[in-house]
Amino acid sequence: MEMLEEHRCFGGRQQRWRHHASTLNCAMTFTIFLPPPRDGAPPPVLWWLSGLTCTDENFASKAGAQRVAAGLGIALVMPDTSPRGDAVADDESYDLGQGAGFYLNATRQPWAAHYRMYDYLRDELPALIQSQFTLGDRRAISGHSMGGHGALIMALKNPGRYASVSAFAPIVNPCRVPWGEKAFTAYLGADRSAWTEWDSCALMYASRPEQAIPTLIDQGDNDTFLAGQLQPAVLAEAARQKAWPMTLRIQPGYDHSYYFIASFIEEHLRFHAQYLLK
Amino acid sequence: MEMLEEHRCFGGRQQRWRHHASTLNCAMTFTIFLPPPRDGAPPPVLWWLSGLTCTDENFASKAGAQRVAAGLGIALVMPDTSPRGDAVADDESYDLGQGAGFYLNATRQPWAAHYRMYDYLRDELPALIQSQFTLGDRRAISGHSMGGHGALIMALKNPGRYASVSAFAPIVNPCRVPWGEKAFTAYLGADRSAWTEWDSCALMYASRPEQAIPTLIDQGDNDTFLAGQLQPAVLAEAARQKAWPMTLRIQPGYDHSYYFIASFIEEHLRFHAQYLLK
Repeated sequence: MEMLEEHRCFGGRQQRWRHHASTLNCAMTFTIFLPPPRDGAPPPVLWWLSGLTCTDENFASKAGAQRVAAGLGIALVMPDTSPRGDAVADDESYDLGQGAGFYLNATRQPWAAHYRMYDYLRDELPALIQSQFTLGDRRAISGHSMGGHGALIMALKNPGRYASVSAFAPIVNPCRVPWGEKAFTAYLGADRSAWTEWDSCALMYASRPEQAIPTLIDQGDNDTFLAGQLQPAVLAEAARQKAWPMTLRIQPGYDHSYYFIASFIEEHLRFHAQYLLK
Repeated sequence: MEMLEEHRCFGGRQQRWRHHASTLNCAMTFTIFLPPPRDGAPPPVLWWLSGLTCTDENFASKAGAQRVAAGLGIALVMPDTSPRGDAVADDESYDLGQGAGFYLNATRQPWAAHYRMYDYLRDELPALIQSQFTLGDRRAISGHSMGGHGALIMALKNPGRYASVSAFAPIVNPCRVPWGEKAFTAYLGADRSAWTEWDSCALMYASRPEQAIPTLIDQGDNDTFLAGQLQPAVLAEAARQKAWPMTLRIQPGYDHSYYFIASFIEEHLRFHAQYLLK
């Protein structure tokens, strides 16, 4: 594991690392923020999954999360959004291939050789991070757009792993929107029955009551993708039927950009802190 | 004047505009943050000047200043760092030409045709902004690196215009460091006597007592440019001799990046607010 960058930030350390990801069969980078050391327990971790076209760096440089994370004593782990490199399959469009891994395990070629972001984020990267940094056991997860989808499916598919989950403008029902239909057809094939295990709405309908965790979703009502790609009300209806403790907030005037995320990231961090630090 | 982007951000509006700059003889962009409306006087303005290679967008997306500006009721104006376009002279290096205007008026060709950032920032852009937005009369100015140089010379050359000035890792003595020597030789010619009117240290030594304004400088001690290009102690000595009210803070462990700026921008905004809002 090789450190690419380190910056002091709000009294803590912002670092970027590169390592060989055996799950993905390529070199990967990730970014981590370590809050200032304090006495007592090591810091819990908030995982952040980014959206289409992003890398591990967008959230670190644009969201302004380190200020609050430093104050609360929470570490931030920011992975990349897909496998990378010349040997990794790609597509000319922004919503398929590199930068668009959709946090699943692909089963169709040419994607299946590398696109196993779900296994990478469930097993390999957490194990690596726990072995290299002094961090607590408690974790939460959040993300934006495709990364909001990733955060929700990680939480829904792994009961007990995360104390809480949140998302900004997540793709909640990828089986039924253009972004998801395109990606799932490529990565998983045309048989839609194979898609539902990667769909937050389907997963929530199939969930058991004891696996519910506190969930917060923020959605701007001036987001150009709201009606066509995001539709958080579909997940809210699933949460209602399942009595899942989910809050969906519609934020007037906000769009899909990092200015939206920056405006509300403090509230998300304080939401997670209730469960991470207790 | 054409609006390129608008985003809601911390309850205010983050906008990007393009206009024809007659001073520079080219199209220019600038970015502005308008805090949430409140009763009473229109918001005062903090001007932010960015560093080498930056545009009007870096500070807006990376510094996290909008949160504090929204809370205090201060507008932020973020100009570009040089004239732009295919018709504008440029250089292959990052520290000369486009992205490296050094906030001066060039007198040597091929630069003199467009590189008049000082006049643009002193006259044309403020007049345009005052005519297009409802803003108060009080202004302060800040910047980073080359933009810290810009902020300091704007304040030193225009007594009474700014209530306060601050800078992150500014180039304070460009006449005597490689960045400044290269740029000033190109833009102003080899005669060093023409350089001193663009040098904060020379300007401060020549200043009259009544033009002093509150000044704050932050400098990271892990900044790779500290010894060779920045040397804020040279300006601190000028301030001491002139009894100029300047605070120079050395921030341990911090480097030249936006992670440094993000970590201390709140303190700069609160510093300026003391003078802008009274």
